[in-house]
This record gives sequence, structure tokens and C-alpha cells, in this order.
Amino acid sequence: MTAARFASAAMVVIGNELLSGQTREGNSHVVAEALFARGCRLIEVAIVPDDHATIVDTLTRLRAKADAVITSGGIGPTHDDITMEAVAAALGVPLLTHEATLALMRNHYGEDQLNEGRRRMARLPRGATPVVCPKSIAPGAAIDGVFVLAGVPAIFRSQLERILPRFGGAAIYRHAIEFHGFESRFFRQLEQIQHDFPTVEIGSYPKLCEGNPWGKIVLTSRDQQALKQASQAVEEMLRALASPTR
Amino acid sequence: MTAARFASAAMVVIGNELLSGQTREGNSHVVAEALFARGCRLIEVAIVPDDHATIVDTLTRLRAKADAVITSGGIGPTHDDITMEAVAAALGVPLLTHEATLALMRNHYGEDQLNEGRRRMARLPRGATPVVCPKSIAPGAAIDGVFVLAGVPAIFRSQLERILPRFGGAAIYRHAIEFHGFESRFFRQLEQIQHDFPTVEIGSYPKLCEGNPWGKIVLTSRDQQALKQASQAVEEMLRALASPTR
Repeated sequence: MTAARFASAAMVVIGNELLSGQTREGNSHVVAEALFARGCRLIEVAIVPDDHATIVDTLTRLRAKADAVITSGGIGPTHDDITMEAVAAALGVPLLTHEATLALMRNHYGEDQLNEGRRRMARLPRGATPVVCPKSIAPGAAIDGVFVLAGVPAIFRSQLERILPRFGGAAIYRHAIEFHGFESRFFRQLEQIQHDFPTVEIGSYPKLCEGNPWGKIVLTSRDQQALKQASQAVEEMLRALASPTR
Repeated sequence: MTAARFASAAMVVIGNELLSGQTREGNSHVVAEALFARGCRLIEVAIVPDDHATIVDTLTRLRAKADAVITSGGIGPTHDDITMEAVAAALGVPLLTHEATLALMRNHYGEDQLNEGRRRMARLPRGATPVVCPKSIAPGAAIDGVFVLAGVPAIFRSQLERILPRFGGAAIYRHAIEFHGFESRFFRQLEQIQHDFPTVEIGSYPKLCEGNPWGKIVLTSRDQQALKQASQAVEEMLRALASPTR
């Protein structure tokens, strides 16, 4: 892959079924894990309904904030599958039959089975490259930093694998340190450590409610040395809190 | 509850840990199910980082689109807990110690254990009502249609229970019909049924990839009679497709 890689991305998850609680959304977590592992920052995830104007507005807003935008859902043949149209509209290009894709479908299904519904799935925004995966003949689409993938998890993951090489940045390192007790015991010292190590992102995540408090302090950085030093400072802080002299 | 209920809502889920794939987000699905059951439309979910400007911008954007906004995460005592400040900024009010909440904490912890970290959690945007639940002494906040809840799932759910009576609309009915085979076989007829029943939202959700296709057609409406008629039309469509004459 000679093209420059995308160092930041946003995601648009499309589907009324997710906002009505009928389906639990899981593709965004797959993206979050995969992009982090490649050193690409995921800056926002938006879950939106099957509404043309909302999809267009969300794509436009997030394209201005991130190097790339990945969408999930709404690329099937039915009337509620409107993502390809919305992406084309957001990019100001027409939605056209992609002849090479149509030829693949004709070869796969045979002319007699190549019905109108399948022909619909051969339409891509003008200038898009199809995202083809082993799980589906109907492709996703890649165009101008927008990657249009399926919503069905198995197909989404398979298509995502194909585009991941386009994403990445300097390696991001992460170290998690467990703590017991309340965050309120150390929040001020932790704030000081965050201040002392500005290149390290320090988060504190309580895991249970007040009944039996514990949690994790997670340190994240592209600077491995700073991460190590900050982690040592956090460990010393927690040791001091646990020591009998306190 | 005499106040009018919120018929639409949006959600802002706050936390770097979600965008880095370290934690799988689940609170939005709890909200989606709970609001649907009450007849309240969830119009968008935004997952955003622990960034003041992003939280303020997202709150402002979504308050303009929905009757109410529910936030999740970032209300603990540590430096990365910035949601209350961001909500106060978005609403143009100061963040002040809520004396009644401080008194509850003093009573719960005792003066000697009421450290600065806990005092921080007694700060609410001016004019906010605390959202108190059995799982946490530290409250959420309700102000001007913004509901600021914890990120820890057990506390989030407990706080959500307390505010749910504020949300609701006319009952929404849903009916799911399983289909086997490819959507491409019926997408045109289904589009016609959608056209014939404009008050019914019809979605088609393939469940597996092309290898062994099946799925569900889900019909949703506040009009129970139209839902019933549209469902019958879908069932007849699927029967006709399955019949040997086809």
C-alpha cells in the first residue's frame, strides 16, 4: 500500500434497529480495537437512523474532523438501505452501476438470478472502489476517505479486514494498573502525574459501585519511555496509599 | 410527575476508553431499549472522547435536535472526569457545590472522610437537580432536559431508572417477521408495502451472510391497526414467494 495511511477516523453506524434497542450495536467496538492496534485514533462514533439528511449531515460533519470515515449498515437491496445514496450525495457524485461489480455478480449468480435487487447492490458512488470480501458478493465502497461497509457483523468484519491497511499511525502503547478503594483517595496525586507527563493520557476507570470499589488506571501514549515513567509514578502512588503509615 | 414528558432524546456517551476499544460500550443499548418501551424516540447516539470542547459542541448540537439529552460517563472525581464542567459550560451556568448533596455525603462518609475528591462530586451545574440512586452517593444531574449520568453500568442503570418517568410518548408497537432466502427476492414488493403504509416503519435485517441467508422484517408504528395490516401484507408476500407456483 503506497498511499498515505489515515491517522484518524470517525465512524457512522446507520440503522433504526440500533436506536430502537432491537439490535445491539457491536461493529463500532470492532473498529475501536482494530484502529487502536494500528495506531489510528478513532475520534467519534455516531449512531444515526436510516434518514438521508441525517446520514449526509453526519458524514459531512465527521469528514471535516477526521482523516477518514467508516460507515456500517444500510447497503442491502431493500428500501431502507440508503447509505450508498447518502454517501454519494455527501460527496456530490451520482450513484452509478459499477460495471465490474455487476460482471462479478452476473458470473456468481448467472444472468437469470441477477435480479433488480442484486443490480441495486452493484451501484456505487461515482469514483468509488468496491470493497470486496469473501463473505459477500455485494461490495462495500471506498471513496475519498469514506469507507462504506455492511452492517451484518460477519460481512462488516470481513470488509474491514480489507481496508485496515489504509489506516495507521505511530504505535500507541497502553498500560493498565489495578487499584482498590475509592478514586477520591488519589485523584489529586493522579492529576499531578498527568500534569508531569503531558504526552501520556491517563484515565481512571472505577469498575464497581461504591459497595466494593476498585478499578483500573490506564495510561496511553505514543512515547514508550514516558509511559513507563508515568506508570512507575502511578504504582508508587498506589503503594504509598496502601502502606500502613497512611 | 406533572411535567410534560420528553418524546425524543439523544445520548452522549463520554470516554476515551470506549474509542480506544479498551471498554465495550453498553449503556446506549440500555437507553435504546428503555426509551423505545416508553414510546420515546432515541434519535442519535454520539460516542465522544474526554475532551471539553467536543462534549460542549456535541451537547449543543444534540440539544437542538432532541427534547432531551442523556449523557453517560465522566462524573467521577479524577482529572479525566469533566462532564459536569462541560454540561455547565454548554448551558452557560457555573459549576457549584450542591449543598444538599454535600450534606448527604457528610452524613454518609463522616466529615473526616469527606475529602476533596468527594467534594468535587458534590458539584453540579447551577440550577441542576441531583439524580440520586441507591448505587451511588455521588449524584447525576438533571437540568434543562440534560441528564448527566455515571458511566459505570450498574450506577448508570440505577440512575436511569430514576429519570425514566420523565421520558415517553404514545406507545410504539413492533412486529417482527422472519424470512428465509435473499432480500433481493422481495425488496420491490416490500417497498410497495412501505409505500402503502406510510405510518409504519418497515425495516429488513438480514441475519447471516450470503452462505445461508435469512433475516427479519420488522414493522414499527404508533398505529396498531396499520401495523397489523402491513404485517399481514408482508406475511402474504412471503407466503407467495415460498409457494411452489413461484
